[in-house]
Amino acid sequence: MADPVPPGRFVTLEGGEGAGKSTQARRLSSWLAERGIDCLLTREPGGSPGAEDIRTLLVTGEPGRWDAVTEALLMNAARRDHVVRTIRPALAAGRWVICDRFLDSTLAYQGYAGGVPLATLRALIDAAVGDTRPDLTLVLDLSPETGLARAQGGGLGAETRFERKGAAFHAAVRDGFRAIVADDPGRCAVIDAGRSADEVAAAIAETVSGRLGVAA
Amino acid sequence: MADPVPPGRFVTLEGGEGAGKSTQARRLSSWLAERGIDCLLTREPGGSPGAEDIRTLLVTGEPGRWDAVTEALLMNAARRDHVVRTIRPALAAGRWVICDRFLDSTLAYQGYAGGVPLATLRALIDAAVGDTRPDLTLVLDLSPETGLARAQGGGLGAETRFERKGAAFHAAVRDGFRAIVADDPGRCAVIDAGRSADEVAAAIAETVSGRLGVAA
Repeated sequence: MADPVPPGRFVTLEGGEGAGKSTQARRLSSWLAERGIDCLLTREPGGSPGAEDIRTLLVTGEPGRWDAVTEALLMNAARRDHVVRTIRPALAAGRWVICDRFLDSTLAYQGYAGGVPLATLRALIDAAVGDTRPDLTLVLDLSPETGLARAQGGGLGAETRFERKGAAFHAAVRDGFRAIVADDPGRCAVIDAGRSADEVAAAIAETVSGRLGVAA
Repeated sequence: MADPVPPGRFVTLEGGEGAGKSTQARRLSSWLAERGIDCLLTREPGGSPGAEDIRTLLVTGEPGRWDAVTEALLMNAARRDHVVRTIRPALAAGRWVICDRFLDSTLAYQGYAGGVPLATLRALIDAAVGDTRPDLTLVLDLSPETGLARAQGGGLGAETRFERKGAAFHAAVRDGFRAIVADDPGRCAVIDAGRSADEVAAAIAETVSGRLGVAA
């Protein structure tokens, strides 16, 4: 009988707008592939056909389209579909999963910045993910002013509902991510995202090597 | 100083497919209007522009499009929007709200029939509704065979995702509604829906008169 496939590792990238999460998720995926590790690169909200349908409701329209609780419920509906249809099958097949945003974005955006009690959000997250939790979470830390300027550098596209929520909101998001790392330093690591993309990628590679035992 | 407006009463109609909820909600609304009571007639999933957008995701597509937990999260996202944008403002203005399906449908469909733990569902419902709870819930009870035959009498339309879930599912929905009434008889009343629409309407009027003090 063949040995069972060892489950893959689950790595999430978190942070505010314009922190470089998508770029760094791609770079991390390539870096792992060069070391023979098969990765699934995915993102939230989205990452499965149903979740992408829900994403459209979340990221378009006016900033006040949904209140923070509705937003959290929609985010976790998308998350559930993503976990069940995409993330769990990949991990079970031994692939690594690199996800651009996951449960900590709910705590930072709808909780620390949106004012929904963290206990309420944790109940929604528990329903959505069960025991599918990240092995490592990389929090890309950057001042909101720099991040929003970067995010809007390409012009305002359609998916700007969150970007338009204002400076105080985005400052609270940053503080929220820092509080999350302080609460769970075993899972989370802060990465200074105010450097060049190459420097940030090197810092991430070093963290992944150290925390998850990948030879650099 | 004027007296504050007394808040309106909140009445929900529940039951399986084809039990006559929409028809009876309209008739109850007319019956109350004849007695000088201003009603808002609404329905779930839906009842606000955002919730109607979510409704489309829920009621179309294949029966297996969402798992029961995703369904419950989407239902409660729609419910939250409906409560915040439509139900609370109406009640605060002194109007009565008559709603075709509400929180008990989540317990019956995703819980008793769908297998999601009731404690999980109650956490989602708490997030969605807060203290906006029905004053009276009328459960229209009918055998699933009769109900599904009635529901499909007009031909299969687009919104048939739940109708196509099968006989065992719908039997569990009926048993679930009965268990809900047994758990909370002060709020809920069973109405035998296997009679003519006139007879059902008369039974509902009698129940509303008795429970909420409206002169028949």
